[in-house]
Amino acid sequence: MTVSMGSRPQLHLNLNFLNAGTFASAWRWPASRPHDFADVGFYVRIAQIAERATFDAVFLADVPALSDRPEFRPFNALEPTIVLASIAAATSRIGLIATASSSFNEPYNVARRFASLDHVSHGRAGLNVVTTADPAVAGNFGAQVRADHAARYRRGAEFTSLVKALWDSWDDDALVGDRDGARFLDPSRLHPPDWRGEHFTVLGALNVPRPPQGQPVLVQAGGSDDGKALAAAHADAVFSVAHTLEDAVAYARDLRARAAAHGRDPDGILIFPGLVTVIGSTEEEARRREEALWDLVPLEYGLRRLAGILGVDPARLRLDAPLPADLALPRDGMQTFFKGAVSLAARGGLTVRELIRAQGGGTGHRIIVGTPETVADDIARWFRSGAVAGFNIMPDVIADGFPAFADAVVPLLRRKGLFRHAYEGATLRDHLGLPRPARRPHAAPLRPEPLLEDIQP
Amino acid sequence: MTVSMGSRPQLHLNLNFLNAGTFASAWRWPASRPHDFADVGFYVRIAQIAERATFDAVFLADVPALSDRPEFRPFNALEPTIVLASIAAATSRIGLIATASSSFNEPYNVARRFASLDHVSHGRAGLNVVTTADPAVAGNFGAQVRADHAARYRRGAEFTSLVKALWDSWDDDALVGDRDGARFLDPSRLHPPDWRGEHFTVLGALNVPRPPQGQPVLVQAGGSDDGKALAAAHADAVFSVAHTLEDAVAYARDLRARAAAHGRDPDGILIFPGLVTVIGSTEEEARRREEALWDLVPLEYGLRRLAGILGVDPARLRLDAPLPADLALPRDGMQTFFKGAVSLAARGGLTVRELIRAQGGGTGHRIIVGTPETVADDIARWFRSGAVAGFNIMPDVIADGFPAFADAVVPLLRRKGLFRHAYEGATLRDHLGLPRPARRPHAAPLRPEPLLEDIQP
Repeated sequence: MTVSMGSRPQLHLNLNFLNAGTFASAWRWPASRPHDFADVGFYVRIAQIAERATFDAVFLADVPALSDRPEFRPFNALEPTIVLASIAAATSRIGLIATASSSFNEPYNVARRFASLDHVSHGRAGLNVVTTADPAVAGNFGAQVRADHAARYRRGAEFTSLVKALWDSWDDDALVGDRDGARFLDPSRLHPPDWRGEHFTVLGALNVPRPPQGQPVLVQAGGSDDGKALAAAHADAVFSVAHTLEDAVAYARDLRARAAAHGRDPDGILIFPGLVTVIGSTEEEARRREEALWDLVPLEYGLRRLAGILGVDPARLRLDAPLPADLALPRDGMQTFFKGAVSLAARGGLTVRELIRAQGGGTGHRIIVGTPETVADDIARWFRSGAVAGFNIMPDVIADGFPAFADAVVPLLRRKGLFRHAYEGATLRDHLGLPRPARRPHAAPLRPEPLLEDIQP
Repeated sequence: MTVSMGSRPQLHLNLNFLNAGTFASAWRWPASRPHDFADVGFYVRIAQIAERATFDAVFLADVPALSDRPEFRPFNALEPTIVLASIAAATSRIGLIATASSSFNEPYNVARRFASLDHVSHGRAGLNVVTTADPAVAGNFGAQVRADHAARYRRGAEFTSLVKALWDSWDDDALVGDRDGARFLDPSRLHPPDWRGEHFTVLGALNVPRPPQGQPVLVQAGGSDDGKALAAAHADAVFSVAHTLEDAVAYARDLRARAAAHGRDPDGILIFPGLVTVIGSTEEEARRREEALWDLVPLEYGLRRLAGILGVDPARLRLDAPLPADLALPRDGMQTFFKGAVSLAARGGLTVRELIRAQGGGTGHRIIVGTPETVADDIARWFRSGAVAGFNIMPDVIADGFPAFADAVVPLLRRKGLFRHAYEGATLRDHLGLPRPARRPHAAPLRPEPLLEDIQP
C-alpha cells in the first residue's frame, strides 16, 4: 500500500470512462445522448467533474476496431490520446491514462505519443499496455492473431521494456539551452536504445525530452499468468478483475510475491479492481435503476456477446437454463477477464440470463447496486483489507451515474478519512504516491544483425 | 484558383510552425526561449495569434527521429496531433494540419487519429502525407530505406487511398441513435474497405464516425514526379518549393495538367510555396536582422548540413569557394526539396557560404527580407499571377517574427483586398474554399489471399 504525503493510506479512484457507460444500454438512458461517444465536449465535462471530485485519473480503454455488434451500443471511437490531450487543456490536475496495444503499434510511436501527452499535461500521463487478442483488430492491421497467448505477451514484454528505454533515452538535464555557447543539447547525455531484439529494432533516442514524470505511469490490465508476470516486472499499477474480496486478497498475494521476486517493493504496485456502480438514493431505487437498465439491453445483444465469449453458436444458449455443462468451466482460450464470471456461474448454478447480468453489464467486472452509503462502505471494507489500492469506478451510465458517485459517494469516503479533499501534488505520480523514477540504463538486446526490413514490399 | 464565398479570389496563408523558427539560430534569438520547442503553451499562444490574424491553418511538420545534429538546434519533438488537439481546445476556427509518414505508420491508426482530430476540432484537421527518406527514422522502426524512390511512393499512394477509404467507411447518416428502437447504428451504412493490397490489408470499417469535413484536408509536400503524381491523384493542397515566380508558374502548369488527366478540376488543388520571412521596420533593419540571425548559426552546423544533403565529407567544402564541379548539379538521390537551391548555386555561381544562406535558413525555401510593405507586395504579386493560392509562411523566428507578420503584413494584405478580415466559415475546408466531399465507393484491391502476418515472430 502506498502512503500519501501524510502518513494515512490514501484511497485511489480512477474513472473508467467507457463512452456512454458500462451498461450496454447506457446510451439509451434519458441522461445520455447517442452522440456523446464521439463528442469531445462530453469527455471534457465529465473529466472536469472527476477533477472536482479529486479523482486520481480518467482512464480510456481502447480497441482499434469497430465492436462486433455496433448496431446495439457505442464503442471506443476517438483515438484516446487525442481525447486526453483535449482534456489536458481543460483541466490541471487529474491524471490521464489511455490504452495502447503492443501488437498493433510501433514502440517508438507509442513512447513518443505518451511522452508528448506527459509534456502537454505537465506530468499527468499514464499508459495501459494491452496485447489485444481481438481478431477484428488484427484484420485491420494485416495480421492474424495466434492462439499463442505466451508469444503475444513475449512481444508485449519486449514492447514495454523498449518504451521504457525510450523514455529513459534522455538524461533529465540533456537539454542545455546555452545560447551564448551555441549549445542546444548535450549529445553525451542522450542514451539511444540501440535495441536489436526479437520483435523490434530501435536504434535512436526518442526525439522528445524526458517526460515530466520521468516515466509516465505504466499500467497493465491482464489477469493471466503472462499478464501478471508482465505487471510484476514493469507495472506501476494493475487494472484487475475481482468478484469477491477473497479473490482480491489472493490476487494481491500472488502479484506482490511476483514483484518481490523481481527485486521490487511488493507494495509498489497499485491494484485497482473494476467496480461497476449502480447508485440510488434508496436501495429500492438503485435496484429499480438496475432493472430498468437491464430491460433496455436487447437480449439478442447479451446472448450474442456471451456466445462470442464462450465461442459457441448463440442457439446453444437458453436464457432460463444453466450453461450447458461442457461450457460451464473457464477454458484456456478465454480472456481472463471473463473467467471469473464463468466460474461464478458454475459455482452458483446461475442461469444464462443471470450469468449475463452477473458479468456486470457485460464487462466481466463486479457490480454493486445500492445507496451511496452502501457503495462507500463496500469500498472502505475492500480498501481496509489491504488487498486493493482503490478502484476503477465503472459507472452504469456516465452521464448521471458518475455525477452521482462524485456528489454522493466521494463525500462519504472523505468523511471516513480515506480519500483526499484536495490534490496534494501536481502529477499523476504525486496523486498515486509513486516516486519520480531516476533514469536508469536499459540493457538492450544485441543481435549480431539488426532486425531490419525494407519498407517496400 | 478557388474562390471564396464572395466572388473575389481569396489569398490563403498557413503558418509553418517549425519549433523556434526557420533559422537554425532562431532558438538563440532574444525573443525565444530554449524550451519553447517542447512547451505546448508556446504552440497554443502562437496559434492564437495566427487565429486572430485569420490564418487558414497552422502546419506542423514532423520527423519521428532526433535530428542529425541536435546539439545545434531544436527539432520536431512533441507528437504533432497531440499538440494540435491541445491547440484545438484553445481556438475555434484556425485549421490544424500535421504530417504523418506513410512508411512508418499503419493506415488504420493514421486514418483514425486524423478523423479524431477532425471531430475534436469540429472540422479543422488536415493530413500532410510524406514518405520519409530519412535513414535515422528508418532505424527507429526496424527498417532500412531503399534508394528506390518510386517504391516508397507506391506505398505512399496505397496508404493515401486506404486512409481516404477508411474516412469514407461510414455513411454520414450511419449513426441512427434510435433509443426507442434500440438501434444505435445501421450496419448497412458502413462500408468496410476489405482492402487486400500490395502493402496493406485492412478489412474493417473505421471505428470513428465520418469526419465533420467528410475528409480531413489532404496535403502532399513532395515535388518529385512521384510526389506530383500522388498530389494530382489525391491532394487538396500541395506544400511546394519555388525559388522564382517562373518556377512557380511552371510547377502550377504541370500540376494542373496532371490533375486534369485524373479528371479533376485543375484549379481544385491549392498550391502553397514556402516563404521564409525576415521582417524589419526598414529594409536596413530587416537586413541587419538577417545578418544577426546568420551570425548566430554555427558555421559547423551549416557546413555539416549541406555536406549531408550532398552526401559528401564536410572537409570537401570550402566556405568561400563555389561548390566542387561534381557536386554542383542536382542528383537523383537528393530530396527534391534541395534540388532548387543546388540548381540556383550552379546557375548563379554561389559560394558555399552563399549557398547555405540561399537555402533560406537551411530549409530549401525562398527567403524574403524587407519591410512589411515589401513582403506584402511580393505576396500580392505572386498571388495575382495565379500560380499560387497563397503561402506557407515560415517566420525566421517564431516568437517575434510571426507576430510581426500578423501585426504588420496581414493588415496590408487586407487593405489590398486579398485577405479575409474575418473567417467566413467554421471548417478548414470552408477557409480554403474546398467543398465537403460526398462519400464515394472506393475500389479496394482484392488479392486472392489477404496479406496477413502473424503478429508474433
